[in-house]
Amino acid sequence: MEKELLRVIPLGGLGNIGRNMMVFEFNEDIIVVDVGIMFPEEDMLGVDLVLPDFSYLLQKKEKIRGIFLTHGHEDHIGALPYLLKQINVPVFSTKLTDGLVRVKCREHKIDTSNFNVVEPGDNIQSGAFEVEFFSVAHSIPDACGLIIRTPLGNIVHTGDFKLDYTPVMNQFTDLTRLGQIGAEGCLLLLADSTYAEIEGFTPSEQKVGDSLRHLTAAAEGRVIVATFASLIARIQQVIDAAVLDNRKVFITGRSMINNVAMARELGYLEVPANTIVGVEEMRKLEPNKLTVLTTGSQGEPTSALTRMANGEHKHLNIMEGDTIILSANAIPGNEKSVYNNVDNLFRRGAMVLYNRVSDVHVRGHAGQEELKLVQSLLKPEYFVPIHGEYRMLVTHARLAESVGLPEGNAFVLTDGDVLSIDSEDAYLDGNVDAKYVYIDGKGVGDFDETVLRERADLSTDGVLVVIVTIDEETGDLVGQVEVVSHGFIDLNEHDALHDRVAEITEALLSEISAKKDYKKLSRQIQDSIAKFLYDETRRRPTVMPLIIDV
Amino acid sequence: MEKELLRVIPLGGLGNIGRNMMVFEFNEDIIVVDVGIMFPEEDMLGVDLVLPDFSYLLQKKEKIRGIFLTHGHEDHIGALPYLLKQINVPVFSTKLTDGLVRVKCREHKIDTSNFNVVEPGDNIQSGAFEVEFFSVAHSIPDACGLIIRTPLGNIVHTGDFKLDYTPVMNQFTDLTRLGQIGAEGCLLLLADSTYAEIEGFTPSEQKVGDSLRHLTAAAEGRVIVATFASLIARIQQVIDAAVLDNRKVFITGRSMINNVAMARELGYLEVPANTIVGVEEMRKLEPNKLTVLTTGSQGEPTSALTRMANGEHKHLNIMEGDTIILSANAIPGNEKSVYNNVDNLFRRGAMVLYNRVSDVHVRGHAGQEELKLVQSLLKPEYFVPIHGEYRMLVTHARLAESVGLPEGNAFVLTDGDVLSIDSEDAYLDGNVDAKYVYIDGKGVGDFDETVLRERADLSTDGVLVVIVTIDEETGDLVGQVEVVSHGFIDLNEHDALHDRVAEITEALLSEISAKKDYKKLSRQIQDSIAKFLYDETRRRPTVMPLIIDV
Repeated sequence: MEKELLRVIPLGGLGNIGRNMMVFEFNEDIIVVDVGIMFPEEDMLGVDLVLPDFSYLLQKKEKIRGIFLTHGHEDHIGALPYLLKQINVPVFSTKLTDGLVRVKCREHKIDTSNFNVVEPGDNIQSGAFEVEFFSVAHSIPDACGLIIRTPLGNIVHTGDFKLDYTPVMNQFTDLTRLGQIGAEGCLLLLADSTYAEIEGFTPSEQKVGDSLRHLTAAAEGRVIVATFASLIARIQQVIDAAVLDNRKVFITGRSMINNVAMARELGYLEVPANTIVGVEEMRKLEPNKLTVLTTGSQGEPTSALTRMANGEHKHLNIMEGDTIILSANAIPGNEKSVYNNVDNLFRRGAMVLYNRVSDVHVRGHAGQEELKLVQSLLKPEYFVPIHGEYRMLVTHARLAESVGLPEGNAFVLTDGDVLSIDSEDAYLDGNVDAKYVYIDGKGVGDFDETVLRERADLSTDGVLVVIVTIDEETGDLVGQVEVVSHGFIDLNEHDALHDRVAEITEALLSEISAKKDYKKLSRQIQDSIAKFLYDETRRRPTVMPLIIDV
Repeated sequence: MEKELLRVIPLGGLGNIGRNMMVFEFNEDIIVVDVGIMFPEEDMLGVDLVLPDFSYLLQKKEKIRGIFLTHGHEDHIGALPYLLKQINVPVFSTKLTDGLVRVKCREHKIDTSNFNVVEPGDNIQSGAFEVEFFSVAHSIPDACGLIIRTPLGNIVHTGDFKLDYTPVMNQFTDLTRLGQIGAEGCLLLLADSTYAEIEGFTPSEQKVGDSLRHLTAAAEGRVIVATFASLIARIQQVIDAAVLDNRKVFITGRSMINNVAMARELGYLEVPANTIVGVEEMRKLEPNKLTVLTTGSQGEPTSALTRMANGEHKHLNIMEGDTIILSANAIPGNEKSVYNNVDNLFRRGAMVLYNRVSDVHVRGHAGQEELKLVQSLLKPEYFVPIHGEYRMLVTHARLAESVGLPEGNAFVLTDGDVLSIDSEDAYLDGNVDAKYVYIDGKGVGDFDETVLRERADLSTDGVLVVIVTIDEETGDLVGQVEVVSHGFIDLNEHDALHDRVAEITEALLSEISAKKDYKKLSRQIQDSIAKFLYDETRRRPTVMPLIIDV
């Protein structure tokens, strides 16, 4: 009989935040949990999105039995269309998640007939795996974790979660079910590490509701709330606070308009009739009769809130008396854009409330006490911290050990690492490809770190092009050396410096005999000019020598 | 008699953090407080430093009576050499600040014979102004605020400060003196807004001392502490904790080595004999007998801590058992580099303690309760919040109003705004030039936003150069159109795309009659190729057409 071997392989999300994707392999069967994208970091110049590396899966195409999606955030579902272009397997998710991936896949012209809507408690047999969804509290409706039964034991994958004993919209984390699994036995736990560094408990969503009601009632003018378009519970609370204060609600920003419409259609939002108003009606309302719900909580350059902050919104001019609430955290990397907006909104005379000065947001992930509780309920044999940068994963592993996980049984994996588990033991077992796959414009994976390094060089000191025209027959310089630059130095300084670059190049050409070896000549020009420019300006523009034969 | 008019003009630090500089003008006399630099923000590509705009001062050169420096941080003194290259006036500061600016000015070959060391309590008559330094608690020794007497009343400028009733090295904020001035009357208060958003009190530096002693005693191996080289009180506490635990101290990182030497020489650090060891002695010590003090708390790429994190430090290899303490906050903009280091140090098996998970740092600026206390002591007639981004200034102004400042008497100025105060009233009075002056390499102010925009374009999609060689006489194309690109697309994709760009350019040339109008031709090539590339790739490289006459 073949040895029973479970392999756990993260393809994204472990070591860096984003592009979450986990592969579980048991002998001849593979299931995949989440297929997310990552938003580019600041040094990924010009990159639009980052995908996980699918190459390991594509090698084992015929083994893949199903894809399971925990919830509808982009870092968990955004890369699915790119994977489904290459394989066709059943996809399982809850109602809202399914709705979101269908829209996305249709845009990519991908067949969705193999998409299945499941409910918490449903069991899906998928090769050797039996997968059950369980409800978790998170910042989007219908979020779930997974209980994955394997011949070697039960795996629990929390997805993104927090606890919240008094959630809005009844979205509890199903602690009772986790308790049952703990009693049954949990071979392996994989749990969300996003806030493993943060002490205590994440406060309840209801706390934000209290603030929103209070601030709305106290506002003498308009209330303008920016939040994530997928944070439906928050949107519900903004609407509730407006209704309670006899305000109408105007919605702006494409994704906010679309999501509110979709959430109402699917029954995720309760909005009394005549609450939402259009532009015409909005214009007729007294300021204290209006709440505006908008996108732009991350300072996105073309979002509605940024347009308001810059005085460029078609329908809304920020003025004294406006109360603006940023009901969101700045995601790391977005701080500068978010606070730029806050500053500009203040400049227009508005009162701005944001997380640093007011209780207008709660996090979507569990803090340390919640993580300990889940460990204590499940008492797993092995533990893999997921969804975090490296220090968060390490901190989470130590936290687990502090509440009873046997030492040595926490595995801090990063993307591509293979954890093998058999009936005796768990151990690191090499690794598979898990590089960043960049999307830039239409190109998917058509460039790599070399291009990014070139862009980084260009970004700091610009480019200088030296054109040398050479007579093919005599090897002599024809005409003058031409020099142009871009992003290097101010126009007024151009000419003198360009002239000297031309002179140096001409002097170099007159010295060198092997004019036919253009590659060598090119390198010599590059070295001399780069050195000259550095000595002269202490800058290092990218020097591009071009030799033209005529 | 000429009307008595006081003008207050911030040239930096109000609306953005950094390059602090304030001008006070009374009829024919000007004094300047601080002349700092700003570190470039992420969108200032390739910029090394940002200076304040001196043009207003240079117009009024002969009126300047003195420059007063509150403390020795770069954002308060870093631009002084650049100003002193253009004017020669007396400079006043306390001992450590004076030592730091002398070093800096000598590097710039600037005469320092006009530099004066003062002590708290000293009065300097400077034209119509009489300036008194008073001691404040901050994250560098010898920090001061200023009491500036004018014919219209007293001005108090806090400099950077916090309170800290139990400071290390006896560096109190002189509340008693402020109380006296409050009793005498305070016309105008200018106070530090850096943490005006933060509730409560900044904890005492002693709290960090407790943590450092505890962590050092508990460490089984080496203790490696990274902090700011100018934070002498912290360095003292690291050394004290080491001595208490019978450890020797090894110092690494150029600025840390220099500052410790300077601080010992000037009597700011007390280090028992034989405590500090060199490389040879360090190598012989048991790990639990060694504390390392290092630079790199901000993740600076060539700093000692970053080299350790990357396994590139000449003398120190991070290993299991090491306890690494980041005794600093990540300054906004540095988060990614700082946390990269933390992740890499964890990867090498060390235990890493940082502000998010441990009490190993306190801020250098006052929180809300401290700011309220200063308002209550001084009861100023007018208030200008300084040292902050716009939202911090607004928040600070409201805070002042909440503790009794008459409404309308807080002026939220930004750089270049002029506040005029006469015997009757205070009012905004136009503005002066206060643009960013960029330093890049050797160039000071030799480029502007245009160059930065070019660099931004280059950074996202690279550059593509199209070279067209034309026969000067016939106007015909000579040879082929040559195409090269950089930072645009992967090498494998190059050729086909370059060939098509060449074809399109050739087709365009055959159509166009007015070949002699090279400017127009160049623009046409640029437009066509940019459009083609965007359609083809959804990228927008900078297209540089070059037309060569032969």
